[in-house]
Amino acid sequence: MERGTQPVIKARVHVGLKAGVLDPQGKAVEHSLHALGFAGVHGVRTAKSFDLVLDETDPGKARTTVEAMCQQLLANTVIETYRIDIEG
Amino acid sequence: MERGTQPVIKARVHVGLKAGVLDPQGKAVEHSLHALGFAGVHGVRTAKSFDLVLDETDPGKARTTVEAMCQQLLANTVIETYRIDIEG
Repeated sequence: MERGTQPVIKARVHVGLKAGVLDPQGKAVEHSLHALGFAGVHGVRTAKSFDLVLDETDPGKARTTVEAMCQQLLANTVIETYRIDIEG
Repeated sequence: MERGTQPVIKARVHVGLKAGVLDPQGKAVEHSLHALGFAGVHGVRTAKSFDLVLDETDPGKARTTVEAMCQQLLANTVIETYRIDIEG
């Protein structure tokens, strides 16, 4: 993939709460769904994802860089897990 | 899949901003990454997902129900798009 003339790599980071960690947002969504009449739904868990474009040509280097981004910013590794998808 | 003795269906809803809609959170993450020294990253876009467990046996009915949940609560269809994955 190119941005202008420079090759780039796309990455997606999926960040979710570790099993067993309370998900207040998920609970709130679940209660709202019940209030809207959706009775048969439970176990609502929320997660987030980040799409990134990296000025990089080597998928391995891209993964290492995104790994560092996760450790430093994108995920709170105490309560969250993350998964990195590298395109290309 | 069973919950106790009752069959359930798992669904995942991916909700993201429509193309062209400004993503302030993505911009904030991008600036933070640059401040941490990750210069070669841009176009950061954020998205969210919901994992749901439905007391349902028919995947078609499950999809219809989750579609209604998206329209009523899970997605702001003015600025967001959503994709529904039904397990099973």
